[in-house]
Amino acid sequence: MKFIHTGDWHIGKKLNGFDLLEEQRYAFEQLMKLADLEQVDGIIIAGDLYDRSVPAVEAVELFNQMLIEMNLQAKYPVFAISGNHDSATRLETGGPWFEALNFHLHTRLEQAFTPVEFGNVQLYLLPYFEPFEARQYFKDDRIRTIEGAMASVIEEMRQSFQEDKQQVLVAHFFVAGSETSDSETKVTVGGLDVVPLSLLRDFDYVALGHLHYQRALTKGNARYSGSLLKYSTSEVNQPKGVWLVEVGAETVFDFVELPFLRDLQVLEGDFATLMAPSFYETIQRDNYLAISLTDRGVIPNVMTQLRTIYPQIIQLERAFGRDVKQASRNTTEAIQVTSPTALFANYFKETTGEPLSPRQREWLDDEISEIERGSQ
Amino acid sequence: MKFIHTGDWHIGKKLNGFDLLEEQRYAFEQLMKLADLEQVDGIIIAGDLYDRSVPAVEAVELFNQMLIEMNLQAKYPVFAISGNHDSATRLETGGPWFEALNFHLHTRLEQAFTPVEFGNVQLYLLPYFEPFEARQYFKDDRIRTIEGAMASVIEEMRQSFQEDKQQVLVAHFFVAGSETSDSETKVTVGGLDVVPLSLLRDFDYVALGHLHYQRALTKGNARYSGSLLKYSTSEVNQPKGVWLVEVGAETVFDFVELPFLRDLQVLEGDFATLMAPSFYETIQRDNYLAISLTDRGVIPNVMTQLRTIYPQIIQLERAFGRDVKQASRNTTEAIQVTSPTALFANYFKETTGEPLSPRQREWLDDEISEIERGSQ
Repeated sequence: MKFIHTGDWHIGKKLNGFDLLEEQRYAFEQLMKLADLEQVDGIIIAGDLYDRSVPAVEAVELFNQMLIEMNLQAKYPVFAISGNHDSATRLETGGPWFEALNFHLHTRLEQAFTPVEFGNVQLYLLPYFEPFEARQYFKDDRIRTIEGAMASVIEEMRQSFQEDKQQVLVAHFFVAGSETSDSETKVTVGGLDVVPLSLLRDFDYVALGHLHYQRALTKGNARYSGSLLKYSTSEVNQPKGVWLVEVGAETVFDFVELPFLRDLQVLEGDFATLMAPSFYETIQRDNYLAISLTDRGVIPNVMTQLRTIYPQIIQLERAFGRDVKQASRNTTEAIQVTSPTALFANYFKETTGEPLSPRQREWLDDEISEIERGSQ
Repeated sequence: MKFIHTGDWHIGKKLNGFDLLEEQRYAFEQLMKLADLEQVDGIIIAGDLYDRSVPAVEAVELFNQMLIEMNLQAKYPVFAISGNHDSATRLETGGPWFEALNFHLHTRLEQAFTPVEFGNVQLYLLPYFEPFEARQYFKDDRIRTIEGAMASVIEEMRQSFQEDKQQVLVAHFFVAGSETSDSETKVTVGGLDVVPLSLLRDFDYVALGHLHYQRALTKGNARYSGSLLKYSTSEVNQPKGVWLVEVGAETVFDFVELPFLRDLQVLEGDFATLMAPSFYETIQRDNYLAISLTDRGVIPNVMTQLRTIYPQIIQLERAFGRDVKQASRNTTEAIQVTSPTALFANYFKETTGEPLSPRQREWLDDEISEIERGSQ
């Protein structure tokens, strides 16, 4: 069985105000061409179909159209889950009808335990979930983290494993040892919600979503598809595409890059160079550009002037900012790799001079889970 | 063929802050009981499924569940359209898959012209639409009103009429001569968007949505189902329920009232009476209540005191307000029966001393259509 493994489409995402619907539409068309060329048996989408829980109506329109083309017109079986950016309930609309035409969309934890039987492959579609949902499902109050939940989740999945078949897990979480980008809204990297790779070894392939870099994980039979497009300047050097996965006695997977309609690029240089035809004629000027100026002096109307040459500037900064700016940038970086629990614990200690007690920490974890849940 | 004709569900609607999901769930269950008892062949829902274009997640959850119970579990064919309160695009999600299981949901004008063939009945499902959509569809710039559009719409529908079959139209608009309630957001009653009953005579039955009063129209073979519940105090005396429609050589229809979980009621009286057990013990106190006090003096903490007896007061007013209040109430009533076009024309004349020219009026109609469109 041959699959395309994609994910993190984030339909409706904007890049500093620039609408990406055309680029997303183009990327989808490239994916469909590949599916036809490779005659795949199905398409796996590992969560974050939309960029937010209530997508704009234009995003809904594009996504509905994509589903129609993939499943109703081209007749590809589709195996999809909701991610942390999706509203599970909103995405769920139509789900029970989709199944009749081999479009399997799981949005609730309990759906993960009935595998989709597809030829010789059993697909377990595990949507993004919160620890409290696993606590309720397993009636086990000790489950406080995704890692803690995953042991039970996989134990239950194993009950339905058939020895003469292959098992594929589709999931949306952070696996220990992965590398991250800036656009994943992962407040808990390094925190409570990291799943050890060893837990996933029972599957012939694990199709992951959540991290936007397809090489975030390079060990075992688990892979991130990466995002459909470059969604932040930290992703400018990442190839984007899909995995072609052949699941059989052995699992074979290849990453296939897909071309962009408009790329995202960082330009660094002084103003005079950037404005010179000898330079800009070498540049694909309708790309989305993050420009870093090496000048130190004042340049009047700098953005307006640059935009006469480069219409789609999404970011403009000075490579040599003042010291203060550098400092604040460093602080931001330090914060990005810390979980909200750790942040609050630091703040608590700084303010009261005391560390959190175990009971306080437990209360904090519960509250933060609830807040994160509320923002879905 | 025997149908239930319902509409104007407005799932997610709140009554002055009170959530009605429980009441809506209950009304739906009564409808399903009737469907089973009467062994109907299908259920028609004539628009305004949701109360707003982006319903709350709880409303989505309830509505999804209702669809599953009606169509997937009880296996009733469902014939539905979007109304002016729905977002056509958002509601459309899943539509093409629904059809495979006899759930027909039309949200775009062009879908109206292919009838759903159902036994001996041809169902034309015409969603709520704006004049500009008809202009585009018919490539006819003269179409400026719903009335103007409807002549073309029905002309096109007639092309597919089969003589040996019955034709049913499902639509969501205002038919001339109907009576209105307060909760329909119909800014154009008496204005541009009134369809003459005579236009509808070619159908064996016209299942209408939009007006909340089921006796709004009592002529011909066209009926409003009325809303699922009482959604404003102007509806307190209206029975709520569904039409049982038998379409055959002759069309026979009966209105069946459905019981409420909690009714909406107006209480008028003086404070002392309302607070007396001899009075309130005769009242279903957990109903939603609009209270009109006949007292003229000051009553301290009046709402708090009343709520100790009547927990679900949605409105409190004085029957004998000051003169100023009465006047302003009268002005409001005068405005309610006027279209925005007429309002603006009055204002224009008052300010400039001149009536609108025909060209100005045309421009105004276009702008107002666009504004109304934008607020969907």
